[in-house]
Amino acid sequence: MDKGRFGRAIEEIKKGKRFIVISHVNPEGDAIGSLLGLALALKGMGKEVIAYLEDSVPDVYNFLPGREMIVHTPEGIGKVDATFAVDCGQMERLGGRFVSFNGKGTVVNMDHHITNSYFGDINIVAPEASAAGEIVFDLLTEAGIKITPDVATNLYVAIHTDTGSFRYSSSSPEAFKKAGELVRFGADPWVIASRVYENYPLKRFKLLSMALSTLEVLNGGKVSTLKVTLDMLNSVGGGKDMVDGFVNFARAVEGVEVGVLFRECGEDEYKVSLRSKGSVDVSKVAGQFGGGGHPNAAGFNIKGGFEEVKKQVIDALHASLGGAQKICQKT
Amino acid sequence: MDKGRFGRAIEEIKKGKRFIVISHVNPEGDAIGSLLGLALALKGMGKEVIAYLEDSVPDVYNFLPGREMIVHTPEGIGKVDATFAVDCGQMERLGGRFVSFNGKGTVVNMDHHITNSYFGDINIVAPEASAAGEIVFDLLTEAGIKITPDVATNLYVAIHTDTGSFRYSSSSPEAFKKAGELVRFGADPWVIASRVYENYPLKRFKLLSMALSTLEVLNGGKVSTLKVTLDMLNSVGGGKDMVDGFVNFARAVEGVEVGVLFRECGEDEYKVSLRSKGSVDVSKVAGQFGGGGHPNAAGFNIKGGFEEVKKQVIDALHASLGGAQKICQKT
Repeated sequence: MDKGRFGRAIEEIKKGKRFIVISHVNPEGDAIGSLLGLALALKGMGKEVIAYLEDSVPDVYNFLPGREMIVHTPEGIGKVDATFAVDCGQMERLGGRFVSFNGKGTVVNMDHHITNSYFGDINIVAPEASAAGEIVFDLLTEAGIKITPDVATNLYVAIHTDTGSFRYSSSSPEAFKKAGELVRFGADPWVIASRVYENYPLKRFKLLSMALSTLEVLNGGKVSTLKVTLDMLNSVGGGKDMVDGFVNFARAVEGVEVGVLFRECGEDEYKVSLRSKGSVDVSKVAGQFGGGGHPNAAGFNIKGGFEEVKKQVIDALHASLGGAQKICQKT
Repeated sequence: MDKGRFGRAIEEIKKGKRFIVISHVNPEGDAIGSLLGLALALKGMGKEVIAYLEDSVPDVYNFLPGREMIVHTPEGIGKVDATFAVDCGQMERLGGRFVSFNGKGTVVNMDHHITNSYFGDINIVAPEASAAGEIVFDLLTEAGIKITPDVATNLYVAIHTDTGSFRYSSSSPEAFKKAGELVRFGADPWVIASRVYENYPLKRFKLLSMALSTLEVLNGGKVSTLKVTLDMLNSVGGGKDMVDGFVNFARAVEGVEVGVLFRECGEDEYKVSLRSKGSVDVSKVAGQFGGGGHPNAAGFNIKGGFEEVKKQVIDALHASLGGAQKICQKT
């Protein structure tokens, strides 16, 4: 929090009456939880609050308190006193319709991405936070705004999902401490976990069954691959979102450093997802193919026949793994 | 902690020189983590410590610091000043060879099971603790014994595994607070999570692929079943332990209240595992078949042909679900 302070954000809350709370396109748990947590907290103070997401909310988050508040277009909103953007690194990622909207008021940018562009009038950027939900928690705490069970549930989901159920290295002492406080305020870990992690359509497991049947370990055991074809998706009647998380099964094989998922997305076209246990920075590998991401999670799109694409990816990973292992296949 | 106090346990630590730290047969993360955490902490004070488990340690826990200390027989130990039993509800569950051993010294029983029989000379039983690891944490804190990164790793694993990666309802504010402290003391959430959850043999995923192909949703969507046959196990060359956790995939189907796994364990003989999301107490259902467990996780063995066994189990679950749903099958 080198730039920006809660002081100025709290001032905006105190003096304003109408607010937008917004997060990024393609929203996930931290975006939606932080947004709804802040929106409900402000509403609880008697403010008029518009919860805005340009994209739709994944079904899995439909249980979140305040979900029904979310609108997807700025039409009819009119001018607000301030817009609170949470978990969003760049203005463009709020969505094209919102960027063109003229009624934003003071823009308060509250984010934890180190790449944040400081696009707000007020910027509270805390890369050390595991989730934007932590920053919202800190704001509410400093401002003395009540954290109700509904607010706590949303902020807990934000932290829970962005730390991968408290498994990623972002699971800091502060993240645990705040999660514990949110449980004290009424978030229910089991109800939330069962809604987030035990709420998949039957056909996703049928698809997983097919995908796992393709599992291979390569590169002397350091790389594992999975494949999902359009035929598989069509046979279960699933959309591409259904494949989310499958790549983690590839990484979860013992001895494997990098898990790879090839998802066919068109004729001779693949979406490649990479997940690393830590020894390889897969964002650099993805970068070689025009993609990007984080050191442990990255991806890119690539054109070509499957065997050709696979060879290119495995060769690039082989080089990143130090090239010490002879590429060989175990089944 | 209505009975027993850390005061008397700390006195035993201060005055003694040789200790056994022990946990239950068939040990899991809390047993092993609590045991090794306490053993290493006592060793760090210059005490002579024997870490004892009558059963073998599952491979997944081989990475734990202090793992090499563990012995499996009382032969040659001789007399110790005190035995610290962690995570164990009954003396018998420490193992038959240990029960017959005469050199135990003062027995300090530190556990979180509500069914604990108070078998120790000193009993510290805290059912509100998510894991025995929390009790060891409290003991070390009260005694001012240093929590090194190795001790922290073990105690973190204890809490992490017994709360199901901070998902079960036992994930209390205290559990989160202590986990955060342990991270501060040097436990690494990602290294630990990747060792515990991303370290499975390839063949387990091949088996999972086969098991998931049997997934069915029954009872109007409230019950989901999986089946693992001996043929499947033999085809991948896997042991029965490889099936651990599969039943959670059955429970994870949306709308499902109870997940069921039928594992063939002999000719017309099945091990049935039940997992509930909360609305059904599956320990009662298991009890009807001579088994037992917890409200959310229970099991039993049953003889009979598969279809017959399945019908009995589904009928019993149907009754527990209120019998309101007509039994019908969706595929």
